[in-house]
Amino acid sequence: MSDEYVLAGDVGGTNLRIAAVARDGTILYRTNGSTPVTDGASDIVAAIVEAAESVIRDAAGHARPMGFGLALAALVNPVEGRILSSPNLPQLDGVCLGAPISAKLGLDVVLENDATAAAIGELWLGSSKGARNSIFVTLGTGIGGGLILDGRPYRGSDGTAGEIGHICVEPEGHSCGCGSRGCVEQYASATAIVRIFRELSGNGGSPTLAGRPVITASAVYDAAAGGDPAARETFRVMGRHLGVALADLIDILNPEMIVIGGGAAGAWDLFIGDVRSEIAARAFKHPADRARLVRASLGDSAGVLGAARVIYDRLSVPTPT
Amino acid sequence: MSDEYVLAGDVGGTNLRIAAVARDGTILYRTNGSTPVTDGASDIVAAIVEAAESVIRDAAGHARPMGFGLALAALVNPVEGRILSSPNLPQLDGVCLGAPISAKLGLDVVLENDATAAAIGELWLGSSKGARNSIFVTLGTGIGGGLILDGRPYRGSDGTAGEIGHICVEPEGHSCGCGSRGCVEQYASATAIVRIFRELSGNGGSPTLAGRPVITASAVYDAAAGGDPAARETFRVMGRHLGVALADLIDILNPEMIVIGGGAAGAWDLFIGDVRSEIAARAFKHPADRARLVRASLGDSAGVLGAARVIYDRLSVPTPT
Repeated sequence: MSDEYVLAGDVGGTNLRIAAVARDGTILYRTNGSTPVTDGASDIVAAIVEAAESVIRDAAGHARPMGFGLALAALVNPVEGRILSSPNLPQLDGVCLGAPISAKLGLDVVLENDATAAAIGELWLGSSKGARNSIFVTLGTGIGGGLILDGRPYRGSDGTAGEIGHICVEPEGHSCGCGSRGCVEQYASATAIVRIFRELSGNGGSPTLAGRPVITASAVYDAAAGGDPAARETFRVMGRHLGVALADLIDILNPEMIVIGGGAAGAWDLFIGDVRSEIAARAFKHPADRARLVRASLGDSAGVLGAARVIYDRLSVPTPT
Repeated sequence: MSDEYVLAGDVGGTNLRIAAVARDGTILYRTNGSTPVTDGASDIVAAIVEAAESVIRDAAGHARPMGFGLALAALVNPVEGRILSSPNLPQLDGVCLGAPISAKLGLDVVLENDATAAAIGELWLGSSKGARNSIFVTLGTGIGGGLILDGRPYRGSDGTAGEIGHICVEPEGHSCGCGSRGCVEQYASATAIVRIFRELSGNGGSPTLAGRPVITASAVYDAAAGGDPAARETFRVMGRHLGVALADLIDILNPEMIVIGGGAAGAWDLFIGDVRSEIAARAFKHPADRARLVRASLGDSAGVLGAARVIYDRLSVPTPT
């Protein structure tokens, strides 16, 4: 066994995670920090470089990393190492992020969309291991997606494919940050859960949550688990809308597996029944029967592990499968 | 130049076309017949075999064909040569069609979904030549779709991928033959054009078409071209709904090209403006700017040519590209 490893990062609107990952997927060392709140891309570059250097320093006994795979909550062009668009990190819009990080660390850097990275991570070491065609859906602040088609990550013509959070499920529905209306993200993300609960309960005036200044998706889950009717209906609304979007994906892509992760997937038992009913009512029978809905198994590590796999693949280093 | 050729067929609910196709895509000979109206799969097999034999007989001067590629209006499992489901040819549901045709003709037979075949045809010799990621949409009696992803036909886990006619654009909308509601097929197919025109004009009571016992999509087109307000609005309704579905596909798949064919694509100028507006309002800017909307260029021959390419590829015979 060698000391070879890569750096892998996952940078979102809130969290900045960097890890040292061995070629079998073992996380040798990791840091969990915060993404700096700043107007400047250079501060984010500096924070990534600083975290990377601390991982290299503290991953004691290991040689220099072989490369750096970096997952980001953004539309990225992996070939150019450029951020095309980043609603959660707008200061990175249009920024070539790969080059300055590569120059400072003296490492090959590959960028990847965070949901695509998570799809790759789950394919490598998680729930979709061995699947030829799988779709990863992450239900967080927004909804992200990553596609594995014919055994390979599918990124599209510019690296922007997989934006399944913006499948339209209500043409005249709630406005979305993307500029459209009625995107599934507006009905099945953690953010949507809170909004729908407020609407259904009369601005949070349910017996369980009345008077709380801040309502979170997690609090709505607790209320539903305790029998609160508005909270229970919230997850049914979520499930029906998510089911419409997944039925579309089943008819379009005929996947063998849809892997659902992200914080809001924790409410699985409260929404998955309605997801399944909606798929049964809408999608063609053959692909609907084929598509297994499963929970993601790598949690917060999926993005980092996927980013590690991407840089290993770029370096053409064989990884055990 | 050799005498080598393949048989290629395209079998729909109405038309049965068989051709002899050279390896450069030249159609050496073709027949255009009708699909028999029958309850039995064996009658359809017999009609296909008879047409195939007549093509072999009349393709004078040519040797025996090298194989037979057959496109069908059905969900097909190309590996098993089996029809999974066929709304327009229900007598073929579950039938292994490849084996009996292969036995009678003494040829390798490969089945392909007709829209996937058309996508392959347009990629080989038509509008999407050279495109790495393209989506073929056919607007006919229904709406079919075929996907070319990363340079290859994408068929999904069972060969059923590409059913983009069943993307939901109105969750509580018009019932669809697939069992769902509000599929784009119910708003942008030739069948839908007639229904929407009837709705908008008070059952066809427009000045232009009043009193006609049968209204066709072509007649609605003529009425719109002549300035009939209900007919013009029909194509705008069509364009808006098609735009919602194509915006979904652009966000999901980031194609460089969407090729639109089928009879109803003839009304291009009457609906494409609304398609483009809807895409601009809904899809992410980068992939929306990337995706070119173009008209299919091979007409009725796309399916036959794609089927020919599929059997050439199966036989591993190099074809000029």
